[in-house]
Parts: sequence; C-alpha cells; structure tokens
Amino acid sequence: MLIVQKYGGTSVGSPERIKEVAKRVARCKNEGNDVAVIVSAMSGVTDSLIAKAYEISQTPSNHDMDILLSSGEIVSASLTAMAIETFGFKSIAFTGSQAGIITDNCHTKAKITKVDTKRVAKAISEGYVPVIAGFQGVTDDLIDITTLGRGGSDLSAVAVAEALKADLCEIYTDVDGVYTTDPNIVKDARKLEKISYEEMLELASLGAKVLQSRSVEFAKNYNVKVVVRSSFTDDPGTLIVKEDSIMEQVVVSGVAYDKKQARITIHGVPDRPGIAALLFTAIANENIVVDMIVQNISIEGTITDISFTVPKTDISKAMEVSKKIAKELKAAEVLLNEDIAKISVVGVGMRTHSGVAAKIFKILSENNINIMMISTSEIKVSCIVDLKYTELAVRVLHDAFELNKI
Amino acid sequence: MLIVQKYGGTSVGSPERIKEVAKRVARCKNEGNDVAVIVSAMSGVTDSLIAKAYEISQTPSNHDMDILLSSGEIVSASLTAMAIETFGFKSIAFTGSQAGIITDNCHTKAKITKVDTKRVAKAISEGYVPVIAGFQGVTDDLIDITTLGRGGSDLSAVAVAEALKADLCEIYTDVDGVYTTDPNIVKDARKLEKISYEEMLELASLGAKVLQSRSVEFAKNYNVKVVVRSSFTDDPGTLIVKEDSIMEQVVVSGVAYDKKQARITIHGVPDRPGIAALLFTAIANENIVVDMIVQNISIEGTITDISFTVPKTDISKAMEVSKKIAKELKAAEVLLNEDIAKISVVGVGMRTHSGVAAKIFKILSENNINIMMISTSEIKVSCIVDLKYTELAVRVLHDAFELNKI
Repeated sequence: MLIVQKYGGTSVGSPERIKEVAKRVARCKNEGNDVAVIVSAMSGVTDSLIAKAYEISQTPSNHDMDILLSSGEIVSASLTAMAIETFGFKSIAFTGSQAGIITDNCHTKAKITKVDTKRVAKAISEGYVPVIAGFQGVTDDLIDITTLGRGGSDLSAVAVAEALKADLCEIYTDVDGVYTTDPNIVKDARKLEKISYEEMLELASLGAKVLQSRSVEFAKNYNVKVVVRSSFTDDPGTLIVKEDSIMEQVVVSGVAYDKKQARITIHGVPDRPGIAALLFTAIANENIVVDMIVQNISIEGTITDISFTVPKTDISKAMEVSKKIAKELKAAEVLLNEDIAKISVVGVGMRTHSGVAAKIFKILSENNINIMMISTSEIKVSCIVDLKYTELAVRVLHDAFELNKI
Repeated sequence: MLIVQKYGGTSVGSPERIKEVAKRVARCKNEGNDVAVIVSAMSGVTDSLIAKAYEISQTPSNHDMDILLSSGEIVSASLTAMAIETFGFKSIAFTGSQAGIITDNCHTKAKITKVDTKRVAKAISEGYVPVIAGFQGVTDDLIDITTLGRGGSDLSAVAVAEALKADLCEIYTDVDGVYTTDPNIVKDARKLEKISYEEMLELASLGAKVLQSRSVEFAKNYNVKVVVRSSFTDDPGTLIVKEDSIMEQVVVSGVAYDKKQARITIHGVPDRPGIAALLFTAIANENIVVDMIVQNISIEGTITDISFTVPKTDISKAMEVSKKIAKELKAAEVLLNEDIAKISVVGVGMRTHSGVAAKIFKILSENNINIMMISTSEIKVSCIVDLKYTELAVRVLHDAFELNKI
C-alpha cells in the first residue's frame, strides 16, 4: 500500500514527539508500505511568527507573510526527515515548492491548482520517505511562495494523496477521531467509527477542529479515503468514506459549535434588487468568506436589514467594506456583534427524516436560548445564539438526539 | 548610490531591533540611495535549530540540515521587509533561491557560483527595497536548497553587491569596526579606520569574528568596497580597501586568536613521498579545511610525525579519516589535542620589515609560553600555543607592537 500520513502541530510539537512520529512511520514501512509524510509547523510556531509580524507591522504584506509562515513547516519537515533516518530508512525533506504543490497567487489563502508529483514519486520509487512541508505551495511560475490558510496542511495531505493515487490518507492529530460533539463540553460524547464526507464536511466547516473543510471537500470530490487518528494512541480512529459505504444510517451524527464568527448587520437598507449582490461582491473581493446571510422581510416594502456572519479575523476589513457600501446605499447604520456562537446539528439522515429542524428549535426554546439567525442545508441545521449559551445548547441538543448511544 | 546593507543576527535579534534596522534602511533611502538588504537569522535561531536536529539525530543528512537552517534567514528577511514597509517604503522579501543566489551542491558548505540578479534588480528599479535571506542559495537546477556555512550571510552580501555593481557594501554587526585585537581581552585595543583586504582576510581566517574570510576574499577578488559598522551606533566603522589606498602603513595591524581548532598528530609515519598527499586528499574529500600542517624532520630518515589543525566541529570525521590512513600506513598512533589556541600577528608591513617573526617568538618565550606549531605567510605569523595562554599571549603581543597607539 502507498499511505500518505499527515501529522499536525501537536504531533510534531517537540524533538521527542517528532521521534515518535518517525517510529510510527518506520512501523508502517516495516509493514511493507510506501509512505509519504506531510507535516504542520511545530505547535505554537505559526502563532509566534504571526505575533512577531504584528509586533513589527499592523499591515504586513501578504507576500511577506507567506514567506514568513512557510518557514514553520520547513523546520518540522526537515527535522522529521532526520528522525526517520535514525530508524534506518532513507528520508528526504521537501518544501511545498520542491514537492510540486502549485497554487494560485492568492497569498495567505492560496488554492492548490496542481500537484506535480515528479520529485516525490521519484523519491518514493527510490525507497525514500519524502517528508513534505504542509500548508504551503508555490505559484505556477515557481516564483512566489504561498500558503493555504489555517489548517492548510490537511489539504496538502489530501491533495498529495490524490496526486500519488495513494491507497489511504491518514490524518494524525491530537484527538483520536471524530466525536458526536466536543468531549470537553459533553462528557459522554461518542467517537464515530465512520462518517460520510458530507457530514464531515459540514462538521468541519461548522467549527469541529478535526479536519479543515477544504481538505474534506477535496477528499470527497476525488474520493480519497481518509482516516482521522491520534498520533498518541493506536486507536483506529474515524474513517471518512462515501455515504453509501456506511451501513447503518442515523438521523443525526453530531453537534458542532463555532465561536469564531461575528455578525454584521446593515440596518435600514433600501429594499431593491441588486443590493445583496453589490454588498457581497465587495466583500468577496476582499477574500472574506461570508458564512450565514439573513435578509429580513421588509415590512413597509422599502427598507430592510441584512445580517451576515464573517470570521472574527476579518471583522475590520468586512466592517470597512460594509460601511462603505452602507454609505453608498444611504443605509441607516452598520452594527457589529462579536458575542455570538453558531450551533449546528449534522446528519445525512435528515434527508429522509422530517422534523429535525423543528425539534432543534423546540429544544433550544425550552432551554430559553434565543435563536438570532437560522441556516439550513440538506444535512444540517445551524443556529446563531448568544455566545454565553454555547455549551448549554450543545449539551441539550446532544442529549435530545441521544448521540451518546450507538 | 546603490548600497547593499547586511545585518547580522544580533542586529535583527528581536522585533524591536528589526524596527531599528528598518529605520536605518529608511534613512539611507531618504538620503536618496537605492538599498538592498541581506539579513542573517535572528541571533540564537540557527544554534537552536542545530540543537533540535542533534536532539533528533546524531547524523542528520546535510540535505535536510540545509532545508532546516534556511528557515532562520527566511523568517528575519520577511520580518525585516514588513518593518521597512512601516516606514512608507515598498519592500519585498526574497529567499536565497528567489534572489538568484546559485551555488554548487556541496550541502552545508556550498560555494556561490553565480548571482542572477534579475528579480532583485527589477525590484530595485521598481522602487522596492529587496530583503534577501542570507546564508542560503539553490543549486543551479534550482532544485536543492543549500547553505553557505557559518557566517555565510557576509558572503551573500558581498556577492550580491558585486552582482548588482553596488557602490558600497555595508556589513552591520554588533561591533563598531575592526580592532587591533579583541577588546574583551585587551582594554586599550584600538579601532582601525581602514584595513587592507589582505590583512582583513588574514584576521578573518584567524578567528577575528568580524567578517567571514570567504566574503573578504570575494570582496578582494572583485574589489567590492566594504565597510564594517555597528547597527547600534552611528560610528563610521572600518573601511576595507585595497592596500594602496591606505596612506600610512604600519608593520603590524592586529593580533588575532582562534580557540576553535584542534590538533591531530599522526605519530610514527614512514617517511616516504606521497604520504602527506594521501592523508590530506582523504581529509579534503570529507570537506574538512585543514589549517596548519607541520611535518617534523625525520631524524632517522625513516619515521616522521605529521601534525595538523582542523576545526573542532570536524574532529570526529578528521580522526576517523586519520585513523584509517594511519592503519594503512602502519603508523604508530593518532593523537588529538583539543586544548590549543592559535595566536596570529597580522600586518602588510611585514612584507618590508624583517624581524617580526623573531620578535614574536622572543616575546612569547619571555612570557614562558611554549610554541607548539608555527605557520607564516607574507603578512602574518601564527603560533599554536596551549589554550590556557591565549589571553596572555594576545596581551603581551598587542603591547609589544604598541597597537594601542596610532
């Protein structure tokens, strides 16, 4: 088998832990597999680099930020390759650029456009374990270093697995799989043995920190078999597969929460066609991902409110754009609420079971939790609530759907 | 003027200091100059990376070591570019590879073969201050990252200055110039206003830590005007120039010491032609730079001793090679002495003044310092003495040649 293994920041957090990673790679090799490794930066390193950058400049250029941040994974990749060699296997470190991870030129949030596996495949065929710096790539003229955004190493791993036609992509992290909800909040949260790409995608995009959502989407599109495992145990982890390969379908698979969004409301907007397009085009041009959007029905037919959520890290840019547009539109005011949380219930069974949304609203209401915004898809229901109700909402929903039971 | 400025590890040792560097760059720009900047890794970073590598592996591969170490300068270059932008100037960071610093493939000790200034020159012409990661380059197939060895950022700076045909190469460091000897040892050591390439070359290769010797050699060969200055003061520093541009020639310019060498002696070697060639070819093949070599006259005409010095960091490799050769030659034994220091007296005036060497031997002898090995060139005399006499030897020689006086 050809196995791609990705190790997160905690898994390569110290020389001691890197040796443990190497031991695991060696075991996989000894079992007769070929292995390619993708690593994140050692835990804390990326944050510390960002802190240094902001200590120096309030407006660091994205070009220079990418070069700066790329250094973190370069360090862990080279140290990991050295560690693997101590187990008697040939190993070689590659930067993202050297590994042929080609991206667009959208600095700090680049998208992978191609993986040229020439060097990595050659290394594998010559018996090396290639260790690739995750999270980073290079523009297709091979000139500029780019990074893929937070959690981008997961995407590096899945993209490399796809390009190499690997049999399995193992994502090693500090949790031992995907849980029905955060075990820190709900004591009897249960680990899932299998989950569908679709559900994992919703959970990931909804704030479950196990896997970056773009990597799940990529895996789903190219049918890459992914397993999420702990690098600290031998637990088999959670397998992410196609929906039809899960035998027993449950209505709800998990409850997720996300405290990283803020709500912006543009109050008193003239209600005429094209307003929303104008606003959200301007916001998209700033590369800000808007999550939920709610436009109130205008009572008098002339004035409406538009509310939407954006990542807290993008607040200042989003507010700037919103105020500019609001001024153009002669809207009344722009309001910001940072004290919100998004609570989401996910399950492919929703497709065939009605009444899930109604049950959620009822449970929240019975616990006096006011719902500020609602957004639904085929397999999930998300509600924005006051930040202080986050843990309560997660617990009562987890209980109500009996997620602690198989 | 086009000025290349190189800042050492202490000068970029913290975000605060990086801001000071940016202020100095901005001042130089405001005076109407074009500036290109080369930076070392933040002080302590390279050592910490090396320590991590050795914590993981006793024999890290040079390929991976180069990728690892290259990260240090990438961090300081991107942070410095960000800092320069806060002063209102456009700036852009480049890795060594991006800056077109092409080297051979001798990992960890690569030699610069070419500087392709295309991108850097374009950046300058567009009004940017390019900030280049020192110490690193890329092989000419643009595939492998290489590093230039300790102090390699000086070489990066001089090579870039030459390639850009810069008017001046300023080396900013934590000392304010070149002294007659280490002021930590001799209180009244005097700062030199000018020094010749030749003398600086000797001083650098003899352990004066101000400038890496390969960079001085490069500057001498291509006649690059170099000034060594402190990044903490506005002191004009020491100008390194051609010998004929120094008006007043003194016999002796400085006293240097080097505690980083060890002596290896192969005892009881059959005295026949080709032995030295055999030994030093084998050592050169390991990329170990041998400094001093002494072969004793064989008294009986059949057996001799060969002593030589190597950097302490290369002891294990050098001993291994020596023992192998000694065995082949049926030599009696291989001895190692790590407790030595090299004391050197340098001055272009030695070319025209005789008796300098004799005076040195006399002074050392009067102070009961035994000389173990001697090596001389046109403009320097070096003596290997017991490590414990280092400071004493430096002081008495500095006094004897009255280096504290102009």
